[in-house]
Amino acid sequence: MSLPRIKKIKIYTLGGSIDKTYSMKESDFVVHDPQVGSILKQANVTVPYEIEEFLRKDSLEINEDEREVLCKKILADPYDYIIITHGTDTMHLTGKALSSIENKVIVITGAMRPASFKETDANFNIGAAFIAVQTMPPGVYMVMNGKIFNPEKVVKNFDKKAFEEG
Amino acid sequence: MSLPRIKKIKIYTLGGSIDKTYSMKESDFVVHDPQVGSILKQANVTVPYEIEEFLRKDSLEINEDEREVLCKKILADPYDYIIITHGTDTMHLTGKALSSIENKVIVITGAMRPASFKETDANFNIGAAFIAVQTMPPGVYMVMNGKIFNPEKVVKNFDKKAFEEG
Amino acid sequence: MSLPRIKKIKIYTLGGSIDKTYSMKESDFVVHDPQVGSILKQANVTVPYEIEEFLRKDSLEINEDEREVLCKKILADPYDYIIITHGTDTMHLTGKALSSIENKVIVITGAMRPASFKETDANFNIGAAFIAVQTMPPGVYMVMNGKIFNPEKVVKNFDKKAFEEG
Amino acid sequence: MSLPRIKKIKIYTLGGSIDKTYSMKESDFVVHDPQVGSILKQANVTVPYEIEEFLRKDSLEINEDEREVLCKKILADPYDYIIITHGTDTMHLTGKALSSIENKVIVITGAMRPASFKETDANFNIGAAFIAVQTMPPGVYMVMNGKIFNPEKVVKNFDKKAFEEG
Repeated sequence: MSLPRIKKIKIYTLGGSIDKTYSMKESDFVVHDPQVGSILKQANVTVPYEIEEFLRKDSLEINEDEREVLCKKILADPYDYIIITHGTDTMHLTGKALSSIENKVIVITGAMRPASFKETDANFNIGAAFIAVQTMPPGVYMVMNGKIFNPEKVVKNFDKKAFEEG
Repeated sequence: MSLPRIKKIKIYTLGGSIDKTYSMKESDFVVHDPQVGSILKQANVTVPYEIEEFLRKDSLEINEDEREVLCKKILADPYDYIIITHGTDTMHLTGKALSSIENKVIVITGAMRPASFKETDANFNIGAAFIAVQTMPPGVYMVMNGKIFNPEKVVKNFDKKAFEEG
Repeated sequence: MSLPRIKKIKIYTLGGSIDKTYSMKESDFVVHDPQVGSILKQANVTVPYEIEEFLRKDSLEINEDEREVLCKKILADPYDYIIITHGTDTMHLTGKALSSIENKVIVITGAMRPASFKETDANFNIGAAFIAVQTMPPGVYMVMNGKIFNPEKVVKNFDKKAFEEG
Repeated sequence: MSLPRIKKIKIYTLGGSIDKTYSMKESDFVVHDPQVGSILKQANVTVPYEIEEFLRKDSLEINEDEREVLCKKILADPYDYIIITHGTDTMHLTGKALSSIENKVIVITGAMRPASFKETDANFNIGAAFIAVQTMPPGVYMVMNGKIFNPEKVVKNFDKKAFEEG
């Protein structure tokens, strides 16, 4: 029985709904501190990981220059197992922007409801991404709704509140 | 890019800490309704699944007869992708009892803190199990703390509140 | 020892942050179902109460006509103990609009963070309002931050995220 | 309009279900850190208060000696507004033990479900106690289920999971 054993997972946070909280000042949601660290602590994860906040944005506001910087960062850093937490609206675009990276497993995930809610998909999705990055062959993937997607072939179905192949 | 696409995941619930809630009558915890269904709904999971409550027990009280019944059930049913939610104390024993099953992927998981708590590893672990069952080759696995274990070679480290290979 | 014993509390819900949830469609908050019923059930409240949804609005959008309708409703109905859940921005305006009502205890409350969050002031505030309405003499009050205010003399301090007398 | 304005609320914590959390070591609930501080912070309470941990016990284990020490402490300290968080099984006994104290408002509360659960009555009850202590005349009270009780005349109805006069 061969089990995945990897040295370290590098996690980049880019903001998005997963990190949104409620601002009393604006009576509105704002993208706040990355939540993935708290989620991994709650799960008492023993696979080594390192978290870096790369952006704190609604994903509709992420531009191609920022995606290129992220791509260069990932190419340059020594880690082969990458998780990216990201807003759901443009996950697939960031996935496409990273598609030229070879020999690394890159998994993009996020949440439909912020991690700060009582009911949220954030913890489930991070758990799913955490295993996907350890078990999938090199490539760029999106993990949402319990499913692994190719960022080139995925659409967000707003009515079903879920991603699907398209 | 080859992505896992499976027809259905069968989920057996056996109780354990993941399903514990607080009983005012006894001022103590009791194993309650299975929580995995609520967790999968929060994640709006689109891979088809079916949940069956098999036991509602503290895992220290599960006996070998019950494990044999579960083994026969899994052998008899048409599903090849199985998740079992289970108390953490004897997960590995149930894993061993199922080790003779061939050609099926069986993933056992649970939680250190009940799903009914604000802070819990339940949702993370279910998300992790959900991807493990889709990506691992046939075999019996335990998924806890973000890691995939062989039930034959795992110990619960009470001080670290985590499982480790041993 | 004289304890307050009242027949029934009438609760009007008008929306506001307390009832906000997250809309995946708009990646933004929306005022959703009234949360006070769920909060009272969690507290297993035994004082009889009745909930009526009057509005479902951000409180900045409540107009004077609506306040007048509410005032007439309260004057006409048979209940002497009234709780109003309300957005925090214009609570005091609704309080002023009801100030002519005599012989009834009216308590306005709400939340700075939605009841759907893990961390929220919603349940605390509803508990506070529930006792204020039973213990205060007839009049119109706002209850927030553990304090009872006169709606004519209260300001929302955005920096302190709290109401204060002013 | 006369509003209650008090200098300071003194809060004694004695443990009980409100402070219970889940121990992975024992796979059981244990009385943990006092939760009232976190609840008051979530509500951003502006009435000054001071918290002192007096005991950390299941209330069935509190004895008469400890109640006498608490009584002497309250008599000796300079505060006139006292909240006590307490297990639900013997709240009324502690209330009776304090009944000789004059000229102070003492409110005992707690929770049927621990504050660490997603669904709990803890925050509601603390909010209710916080207003009761400011609005009631001197005396010893229990506040649970949205109602103010005389500790001499209250029973815990286990079937209804609520306190009632008896």
